[in-house]
Amino acid sequence: MALKASELKAGDTYTECLVEDLKRTQIVQYAGASGDYNPVHTDELFTKEVAGYPSVFAHGMLTMGMTGRMLTNYVGDGRLKSFGVRFTSQVWPGDTLHSTATVEEVNDDVVNLKVETANQDGTVVVSGYATARVNV
Amino acid sequence: MALKASELKAGDTYTECLVEDLKRTQIVQYAGASGDYNPVHTDELFTKEVAGYPSVFAHGMLTMGMTGRMLTNYVGDGRLKSFGVRFTSQVWPGDTLHSTATVEEVNDDVVNLKVETANQDGTVVVSGYATARVNV
Repeated sequence: MALKASELKAGDTYTECLVEDLKRTQIVQYAGASGDYNPVHTDELFTKEVAGYPSVFAHGMLTMGMTGRMLTNYVGDGRLKSFGVRFTSQVWPGDTLHSTATVEEVNDDVVNLKVETANQDGTVVVSGYATARVNV
Repeated sequence: MALKASELKAGDTYTECLVEDLKRTQIVQYAGASGDYNPVHTDELFTKEVAGYPSVFAHGMLTMGMTGRMLTNYVGDGRLKSFGVRFTSQVWPGDTLHSTATVEEVNDDVVNLKVETANQDGTVVVSGYATARVNV
């Protein structure tokens, strides 16, 4: 079950659906869990009328967090050593996100991954990299 | 109130207390918000007796998420362009975390930051970088 470096090669991919039809409630749950209560994520009236966005939107860190969940599901618990992304597009209520990790390189027990999360239109919302230490 | 590139210089720092005495309940909240229900974060009996850890511990992505909250509090909403960390030590219930962003470079409206989050013993739990696009 645990991922093994010897069974991985460049180009291998792993994909997960991170969320289907993202609910405002999940964004509120993330606000509570993270302590990030910026109202552009939770207050529809403020966000439309004062901040000037079409609706509330997800914290970038929620998208990154769900992408991290995909990574730890793939590489195993406690094995993720580094993770970085660029935030390239916003995530809105109703969005469905899929995330893919692609093996770029395997050096002994260290795996370098390319990471990309996209919405239902194929727009990339975060892209980046991760490194993991796995079993040989 | 919004951060201005012209008022920043290399070496400037911003520090926040991310959490004081981390509660198991916050870890459970994060599990619910992220969908990451690995029991090593929420099930004390499993984690001690089966997984062999001294207690449950926080998701790395929760620590990263709280660190990201510090960053968006500092640079402003929608301004964080990239963020990456190394996970260097685990975070346990009862931990108190402080996080610091240090300005490394300012190029026009782009600010490069060094980011470090440490626990009450001074042990660094995540360290990394961020870039933000701010007002000139």
